[in-house]
Amino acid sequence: MQRLRVKGGGFHYDVEMGRGAWRSLRQFRDAGYSSIFIVTEKLLWQRWSKLFLRDSGLRKARALFVPAGENSKSLNMVGRVAGKLLECGADRRSLLIALGGGVVGDLGGFVASTYMRGIDLVQAPTTVVAQVDSAIGGKTGVNLGAMKNLVGSFYPPRLVVAEPLVLTSLAPRAFRSGLYEIVKHAILSGRTLFRELEEKLGSLPSSNISALEPILASAAKVKVDVVSRDEREAHLRLVLNLGHTFGHALEEVTAYRRFLHGEAVGWGLLLIIRLGERLKLLRPRDAERMARLVRQVGPLPPLRDLDPKRVLRLLPRDKKAIGGRIQWVVPERIGKVRIVTDVPPAEVAGAFHDVRQTA
Amino acid sequence: MQRLRVKGGGFHYDVEMGRGAWRSLRQFRDAGYSSIFIVTEKLLWQRWSKLFLRDSGLRKARALFVPAGENSKSLNMVGRVAGKLLECGADRRSLLIALGGGVVGDLGGFVASTYMRGIDLVQAPTTVVAQVDSAIGGKTGVNLGAMKNLVGSFYPPRLVVAEPLVLTSLAPRAFRSGLYEIVKHAILSGRTLFRELEEKLGSLPSSNISALEPILASAAKVKVDVVSRDEREAHLRLVLNLGHTFGHALEEVTAYRRFLHGEAVGWGLLLIIRLGERLKLLRPRDAERMARLVRQVGPLPPLRDLDPKRVLRLLPRDKKAIGGRIQWVVPERIGKVRIVTDVPPAEVAGAFHDVRQTA
Repeated sequence: MQRLRVKGGGFHYDVEMGRGAWRSLRQFRDAGYSSIFIVTEKLLWQRWSKLFLRDSGLRKARALFVPAGENSKSLNMVGRVAGKLLECGADRRSLLIALGGGVVGDLGGFVASTYMRGIDLVQAPTTVVAQVDSAIGGKTGVNLGAMKNLVGSFYPPRLVVAEPLVLTSLAPRAFRSGLYEIVKHAILSGRTLFRELEEKLGSLPSSNISALEPILASAAKVKVDVVSRDEREAHLRLVLNLGHTFGHALEEVTAYRRFLHGEAVGWGLLLIIRLGERLKLLRPRDAERMARLVRQVGPLPPLRDLDPKRVLRLLPRDKKAIGGRIQWVVPERIGKVRIVTDVPPAEVAGAFHDVRQTA
Repeated sequence: MQRLRVKGGGFHYDVEMGRGAWRSLRQFRDAGYSSIFIVTEKLLWQRWSKLFLRDSGLRKARALFVPAGENSKSLNMVGRVAGKLLECGADRRSLLIALGGGVVGDLGGFVASTYMRGIDLVQAPTTVVAQVDSAIGGKTGVNLGAMKNLVGSFYPPRLVVAEPLVLTSLAPRAFRSGLYEIVKHAILSGRTLFRELEEKLGSLPSSNISALEPILASAAKVKVDVVSRDEREAHLRLVLNLGHTFGHALEEVTAYRRFLHGEAVGWGLLLIIRLGERLKLLRPRDAERMARLVRQVGPLPPLRDLDPKRVLRLLPRDKKAIGGRIQWVVPERIGKVRIVTDVPPAEVAGAFHDVRQTA
């Protein structure tokens, strides 16, 4: 078990990571909450509720189910969950636990941040991406049309509990998808985690919890460090967007049907690595090493049939764009990125063309 | 012109109140915003846009219209406004001005607090209630079904600008409705404002701006003082709920069709005054004086035909209820209220019965 501390302006909370992390939830059993709710997905709950309730001791907590999938990240679903909470008697002193992947965490977090103007929230992430990334840092949100997280909030949870055992029930593709975010964190953080991944990534099954745990903790620490230095993403936090500018456009152009989020980030990393090389910000040797690590995760869904114009047109709609100018996070070397706002469109198109060739 | 300062944990903002208040918006013209949007209602904009644009100097700002009425306070409308903002190119450095009454302020504030996880907000209230109460203090929200403000946020604006001239175009009933909230503030604040109202309230037309201005400023100051001492309403801020526990139930039981919000608060004040008297917390002489001031505002829509059981059943659903217990804000004397949580249901029913007799 590792405990990482997130510090922000006026608040802090812990990330408990490792086997038995759910036991930390026992502190909430007699903490004076009027009621405790768990927003989750039905299949996940069927598989893990027994362990969750035993470890957490929260036997009186009530589970509320949302359908699996990105479509649940909608204002409509916010209304449905809030309505259900009201019906079940949730009030301002209720606690909401979001038990699930990025969808449940983002939706549940947004509901907690807005239900009666904010109730206490615990994130209990159950996917790789959620454990090392999305459940940490207080970002919540829902999509509007094709625009991801257009409506959301910054809302620090009381606690994050990441139990790696749940990862054993992930489908192999979903598990691998999360590894792309770990690669992203390795590129941001530096040689130690990067080398560890180079050694282990190819042979890391979700069932090998003891090999997984230290990698998850190192990857989560990257996120914790960044958000602790900058709770709102205006500045430093932007680096976490590495690979996501292209990634979001790929998800959007395929209506979120082709790529898992991590897979879109995987392509996004390959694209931004290539862009860095084209801009001569990144040496070919480092670019190759980074790209090799991305490829090592496994096969990615095809890119080749996508219309470059349609993809490129979606780029300026990225939420991090300011006045229509994209803030590109470009790797310079392992452990270092640079924000670049004046990338010539021809170079962006060129990078897309180059990577698409190899797809 | 009066300037009041709201201070909270980690932020502060000014409330500019009086003729010419919109001129304070000039500071935003060259403040580096990528774009400026005004969420408002069409009729209001037609009537006041010329003065607003001239005083504020914000000629490049773009108006977005929402339909008048409480129904616009919905998650659906949040999605529509956010979609429109996206379509018009709003990004994280955009400014949103909510120009309107409580509905526009609550909805616009919520949109600003959640669009791309929060953009800058200015409140430009145009009704009495909004100028002295709802636009101050950072509360935003939308309704869910019949539950008012079930989904919302605490989100301090950059500035509040209250131009009393707009009140001259209010319908007489809408204008009067706001005076009930001023009476509420007078009961909370003490004898000075209370006496001033006793002298002037009967003969205060919306057209008499110079007589109105100091009263608006005194009433707004009550709100500023309370929220500055307690930005989140857990404690002190609860006193502002005076008259609202009954008021919300009355609005809900009539599906928001019969009473304007202030009118429901008017009845709510009469009911809570009577309850205070029944509980022997409030002396008959003070109760009478308070009730007289409420009645002085003008006629209220009928109460007599409402089923007491249906009204009383809605009371525990008030958002301020904790574990199903209502936190009653009961006047003890002019300038003093007490929070009471253990009011016998028979006394509540009795107060409703008594006031209903007189309706």
